[in-house]
Amino acid sequence: MSSVYTTDLNCPLPLLDHPRIRLAHGGGGRMMQRLIDEVFIAAFDNPLLRNGHDGAVLDLPHGRPVMTTDSYVVRPLFFPGGDIGSLAVHGTVNDLAMCGARPRYLSASFILEEGLAMETLWRVVQSMRAATDAVGIEIVTGDTKVVERGHGDGIYINTTGVGLADHTLKIEPRSIRAGDALLVSGDVGRHGMAVMGARQELAFATPIESDSTPLWNTVAELLDAGIDIHCLRDVTRGGLNAVLNELAQASRLQFDVVERDIPLTASVRGACEVLGLDPLQVACEGRFVAVAPRECAQQALQIMRAQNLSAALIGRVQLGEAGLVTMETSIGGRRIIDMPSGDLLPRIC
Amino acid sequence: MSSVYTTDLNCPLPLLDHPRIRLAHGGGGRMMQRLIDEVFIAAFDNPLLRNGHDGAVLDLPHGRPVMTTDSYVVRPLFFPGGDIGSLAVHGTVNDLAMCGARPRYLSASFILEEGLAMETLWRVVQSMRAATDAVGIEIVTGDTKVVERGHGDGIYINTTGVGLADHTLKIEPRSIRAGDALLVSGDVGRHGMAVMGARQELAFATPIESDSTPLWNTVAELLDAGIDIHCLRDVTRGGLNAVLNELAQASRLQFDVVERDIPLTASVRGACEVLGLDPLQVACEGRFVAVAPRECAQQALQIMRAQNLSAALIGRVQLGEAGLVTMETSIGGRRIIDMPSGDLLPRIC
Repeated sequence: MSSVYTTDLNCPLPLLDHPRIRLAHGGGGRMMQRLIDEVFIAAFDNPLLRNGHDGAVLDLPHGRPVMTTDSYVVRPLFFPGGDIGSLAVHGTVNDLAMCGARPRYLSASFILEEGLAMETLWRVVQSMRAATDAVGIEIVTGDTKVVERGHGDGIYINTTGVGLADHTLKIEPRSIRAGDALLVSGDVGRHGMAVMGARQELAFATPIESDSTPLWNTVAELLDAGIDIHCLRDVTRGGLNAVLNELAQASRLQFDVVERDIPLTASVRGACEVLGLDPLQVACEGRFVAVAPRECAQQALQIMRAQNLSAALIGRVQLGEAGLVTMETSIGGRRIIDMPSGDLLPRIC
Repeated sequence: MSSVYTTDLNCPLPLLDHPRIRLAHGGGGRMMQRLIDEVFIAAFDNPLLRNGHDGAVLDLPHGRPVMTTDSYVVRPLFFPGGDIGSLAVHGTVNDLAMCGARPRYLSASFILEEGLAMETLWRVVQSMRAATDAVGIEIVTGDTKVVERGHGDGIYINTTGVGLADHTLKIEPRSIRAGDALLVSGDVGRHGMAVMGARQELAFATPIESDSTPLWNTVAELLDAGIDIHCLRDVTRGGLNAVLNELAQASRLQFDVVERDIPLTASVRGACEVLGLDPLQVACEGRFVAVAPRECAQQALQIMRAQNLSAALIGRVQLGEAGLVTMETSIGGRRIIDMPSGDLLPRIC
């Protein structure tokens, strides 16, 4: 399991007066107040949260503020390489990074299912704290709801992030130009396979750990180096395949990639072959596609490889046919990569 | 039912190709893209959302930015006077208002249950649009997840709001002073009773409609008039009772209220008597408590009454015993009002 669990995981004993979440924990009274104080404020501790008001006043000194939101319903809650808590931090932080924004603040809102073990909540919340510490951000406001048994699945988490973009680039699909290079920040498909493995208790030949990780540092290095980034997009639901199709459609350009250049670990490739899955449709939670002018491609690749050795230049953008994605296959042909239909693996994030 | 339903409620026919939500609607592929385009972007339409990026760049010209979050799990989804959509806008907008912040931007994140009728989602989303229009704000970024049948309850919504406070007051519990007046912005308990009535199909003697409404306008009028507001808190879970106790505890002062001054409609009073409920523990979604210096109390009351005739001065703050709330009862005695335990009525918001 993930290293985030090596920190203190002992649930404080007084909390175990109620070893399982009850409806009253969301009722606005004493029990909810105790849950907030002893679990959330204890873990996320910072002055804004301790203020105990309905919202948090943010300190946003300069730059363009960026806002993004995601709800997390991953199943199971814990998987090799992460859990719903670290995922809920990484996923939202990464959406900010994809806008070229330095993550600053997170909100955290929990929908708990009656009967959830208090110890499970405690572990998830500790994992969130470890993840926010690693990124250097704070959870400044939150909310807790409890739903009856059979109307949730343990824990659902929403995190909404506010960050600051302090550069002059317009990092968005409409900035993509014909001739641009397509880069990916590391090997793809590990998160989806790790969750699938945990869910179905598959014993892969080689254990597969999620790629869940924060991406801001890599983006910051690209920005600091003056790379003229045209667009960034993290690879999540729908996999690399969905990202390429979305960006090709939004930019009204053709994307051509080369299959042998797309980084895949042997274990993901092998597991996908056994299960009959297309690894390019499998989700990541710590990988992104960068689109940048050809002239910057080698420098960008060097920076990305310094963070992750498997980063790769995988293709290029051309005028061609608007919205089309093609792949030069390993056997030398070229085929169209269509948008996935979207029912490969539900509840991956 | 609420007036928000008088707008066009016909679900566009192409959407009904899939009359119910399927897991693939959350899978990151074509079906999800169609859902986003034809439901969410169609309803919330604005340039930031149409941009189709992972986050939205906010325009926050000056003032202190404030952030707040809430998830909504109200059951049933529709109730007299509102629905989960309008509630998800009002609730978060009101939390911003309670920080003295003008609402500016909302994110909206949906957890949909497999099998949800597309037409229900359509109605909820239209109601959110009507509610944001009424407040003059925009939903600028969002997310959709789908969970299997039996792991949700139709629709759960998270909204996170960003607003701007452009005054110099510190509106927070620690600003409360002995001698301050306690005001409430209108009759309490209607939202909770309306939801309870809808859930249990109770036929109240007089129909009870939710008090769900945005509160920013009233707060703006208080600020514009130069009222030296010390604290604001909206009355939600736990009712007036919970608000008074929370603020008394946070300010370490004693709060004394007068029972006959607390505004209650005859229908809420009657329904609570029949059901054996304490109306002061019943939730509102469009009422707030204002704490202000005694000298401003009459002017503040006039402003609040211009918005809602039932607004009232209900008590005062004194040194007394830190955290104590007392009530002068209708028969002339004085009793302690304790924090509710919190299991009166789950899933009210």
